[in-house]
Amino acid sequence: MYLEDFEVGQRFKTRAMSLDEPAIMDFARQFDPQPIHTDREAAAEGPYGGIIASGFHTAGVIFRLWIDLGLMLKSSLGGPGIEDLKWIAPVRAKDTLHAEIEVTEVRPSKSKPDRGIVRFQMEGFNQRNEMVISFVGITFIKVRPA
Amino acid sequence: MYLEDFEVGQRFKTRAMSLDEPAIMDFARQFDPQPIHTDREAAAEGPYGGIIASGFHTAGVIFRLWIDLGLMLKSSLGGPGIEDLKWIAPVRAKDTLHAEIEVTEVRPSKSKPDRGIVRFQMEGFNQRNEMVISFVGITFIKVRPA
Repeated sequence: MYLEDFEVGQRFKTRAMSLDEPAIMDFARQFDPQPIHTDREAAAEGPYGGIIASGFHTAGVIFRLWIDLGLMLKSSLGGPGIEDLKWIAPVRAKDTLHAEIEVTEVRPSKSKPDRGIVRFQMEGFNQRNEMVISFVGITFIKVRPA
Repeated sequence: MYLEDFEVGQRFKTRAMSLDEPAIMDFARQFDPQPIHTDREAAAEGPYGGIIASGFHTAGVIFRLWIDLGLMLKSSLGGPGIEDLKWIAPVRAKDTLHAEIEVTEVRPSKSKPDRGIVRFQMEGFNQRNEMVISFVGITFIKVRPA
């Protein structure tokens, strides 16, 4: 999909993906080494009663499911950032997450006629359909080649 | 450090950490499988003239450096989210990143007297001291135990 193919209100839904405890701990050891993510005993005593995934891990899983739809494979020029990332509910081992995405803004670039900016409201849900994360992704997207 | 130990304007600086190309590609294959992060030839033709790190990877590295300072090892209760994440400059293999953090808000929780909320302005820099990422991290932090 190129810039012209996106419009406000479009919705997309991804496949689901499960997280297991080794993956949760491996991610956390690299990027978020806090006992609540890496130490079963300490986490059991902590505020969530057990290991939960790093919020950065959850964000990565949701983003990956979005990328796997393949919609922007030829058109993405990367993104300037994300806004309003909220971790809403804990994610635990064996949770199965999917993402739902809504286009909330589409606008051509003022300075670069070959691209535009698209805002996506990204929401991640677990297997009980509880929202666990939400954020706004901003992406530069090419206009359709002539 | 507990809630009482934080005050607006405090600044912290982390050690530096290098990213190599295998780590960049490995992260991207798991969480951001776009050619610009995973395919050397495609990336060379792309907007950055080569492989760049996933922005989620950069965020994870900066957060990890922050956690490694160990300031909140006993006091963090996790966070409700992050705000205004900006990817400012590309991060490439062999770049060496460090983080600088400033406390921008400290307030007790209205509903839970055992904790408060601290906002941190997090900034990541490369070896040329160019800012590559910034975001606001929000963390629930315990008050000092009686």
